[in-house]
Amino acid sequence: MNTRVRRHARALDLRQGRIDMNHGSGGRATTQLVEELFLSAFDNEWLRPMDDQARCDLPAGRLVVATDAHVVSPLFFPGGDIGALAVHGTINDVAMAGATPLYLTAGFILEEGLPLADLKRIADSMAEAARSAGVAIIAGDTKVVERGKADGVFITTTGVGVVDPALDIHAHRARPRDCILVSGSMGDHGVAIMSEREHLSFDARILSDSAALHGLVADMVRAVPAIHCLRDPTRGGLATALNEIAEQSGVGMRIRESAIPIRAEVRAACEFLGLDPLYIANEGKLIAICSADDAGALLAVMRAHPLGAQAAIIGEVVADTLHFVEMETAFGGSRMVDWLAGDPLPRIC
Amino acid sequence: MNTRVRRHARALDLRQGRIDMNHGSGGRATTQLVEELFLSAFDNEWLRPMDDQARCDLPAGRLVVATDAHVVSPLFFPGGDIGALAVHGTINDVAMAGATPLYLTAGFILEEGLPLADLKRIADSMAEAARSAGVAIIAGDTKVVERGKADGVFITTTGVGVVDPALDIHAHRARPRDCILVSGSMGDHGVAIMSEREHLSFDARILSDSAALHGLVADMVRAVPAIHCLRDPTRGGLATALNEIAEQSGVGMRIRESAIPIRAEVRAACEFLGLDPLYIANEGKLIAICSADDAGALLAVMRAHPLGAQAAIIGEVVADTLHFVEMETAFGGSRMVDWLAGDPLPRIC
Repeated sequence: MNTRVRRHARALDLRQGRIDMNHGSGGRATTQLVEELFLSAFDNEWLRPMDDQARCDLPAGRLVVATDAHVVSPLFFPGGDIGALAVHGTINDVAMAGATPLYLTAGFILEEGLPLADLKRIADSMAEAARSAGVAIIAGDTKVVERGKADGVFITTTGVGVVDPALDIHAHRARPRDCILVSGSMGDHGVAIMSEREHLSFDARILSDSAALHGLVADMVRAVPAIHCLRDPTRGGLATALNEIAEQSGVGMRIRESAIPIRAEVRAACEFLGLDPLYIANEGKLIAICSADDAGALLAVMRAHPLGAQAAIIGEVVADTLHFVEMETAFGGSRMVDWLAGDPLPRIC
Repeated sequence: MNTRVRRHARALDLRQGRIDMNHGSGGRATTQLVEELFLSAFDNEWLRPMDDQARCDLPAGRLVVATDAHVVSPLFFPGGDIGALAVHGTINDVAMAGATPLYLTAGFILEEGLPLADLKRIADSMAEAARSAGVAIIAGDTKVVERGKADGVFITTTGVGVVDPALDIHAHRARPRDCILVSGSMGDHGVAIMSEREHLSFDARILSDSAALHGLVADMVRAVPAIHCLRDPTRGGLATALNEIAEQSGVGMRIRESAIPIRAEVRAACEFLGLDPLYIANEGKLIAICSADDAGALLAVMRAHPLGAQAAIIGEVVADTLHFVEMETAFGGSRMVDWLAGDPLPRIC
């Protein structure tokens, strides 16, 4: 840290202190909060000069940029918290271009009264998630709003990365006869949040799958550079993500229920809660679509990665001018898998 | 727009409609909101594919990234609104590196019940501000929180640009005997917000100075590439920005009150409201610090630009191990200009 900018009479009280409006003034209190809480957690060469912007170098490639606002409630949940989620979510959006995420920015909106201990825990979690992912948080901003005008903390992260210009991975590139793969079990994140929110406990504790997927993606594009589509099925779950791709590509899809990996405890919780796991958010899973010729090689490389051990081929792309996603049920029947309508799980991410 | 992704039974009711929780679900309602309200306003080649990330090319140079969360209240104020402010604020943070801003991302946090007409007005204002500045909004995200968990709309923007690696403009580069310049009148934005908030009317209507400064900066760095520091005195105003630079550079400053441009109506409003204009936020002004030898040339080029017509040299950097900012008052006395303590004007940006 830059010791020249430390001149505070008393250190922040990270145990008992709370955010007050002064922390958003832009004055001394803001600087102290940024230095003692954020800079000390995120410390890196780009953030340290405390300019209003960061300067950095990019390796060769096209620039990839993604942004995500995070409003998850509660802030802490089994398997994660809003901090790690804000890092993973945006890294994953960058990675879904087949790109290498390099830098993140973070904009914090804090509610007056937020315990500093909670904010410190969130910042430390972000720092740890970023460090594990090899990504640096290089710029940020902090605003404070009055009690009752926000809900604890909202975090908007933007990710910057680079992609090999030879890759052409887009949601509009699914073609009839392509295979549809998922990297692992569906619904873990949403059910983890829901059980925390509703104070439910099941026999097996269900954890969020929140994770950074760019390492898995790097292995995948190395093995199969001709992947057509990648998408992480977050809000709206697998069903919504497949419908989006189907519409954007102008195709239909046929998936097999029996092939979709879903943990027994997630399935049981969904039955109990009246939720369909296909519509439940994931934060550490991806959908990949590639030609049938490439599917075996892609599945193998996914299964060889810790975050893809449960990967599976769940169906095929078909020609369909109506862009329907249809599912062969476990009982041998068939049903439409429509877009999510309504919102069974608000503020899931 | 991509006509393949338009399949909504009814268009959004942009006159009478309101944001509901479904607009944050990630499902059909979210897609409709994004397409009919945001994409139609921001439309560009990067946003149009509706992927979860944007890919773009960068000209040669170092990457510059800045982010700002915007929580200004009220959402609409004389001379601007949260949308234009979110574009200008982040463009300016990028520009203060001497950089050329190219792309923006925008993360929206919407409160349930927000009138769609307000959101449309904000999106149109962002689009217009971005277009005028030659910057494209290439990626975004939209979340919705329950009524009472946010305050209308919060917008976090991230800006990406490039800077000539030969430029070395940083807050730690002020040196004794450097000149301190400002680009125009101080305090307009904060007083405009405050009068709107308090329903005050003065003889002359005070407008926010919200503006994108990168054109002015481009002229400045072309004429004087050796500028030492640039900073836009937003939250905390001129006084706080000068104190930050003084500490980061390890210097003191002496400024002259009579040299600081302040509109008569802003001065009068500040007297009425009990505010010190030196601590009031600006959203279209900058501070520049350069060697005394360069100051005349820099002042001339600033005054030649419409956004710098009232530019002035307001003081000098001095050696001072205490890093004090001192002001010679209009009456010939001298007073300390300390950091902002407390927050006289919360949620000013």
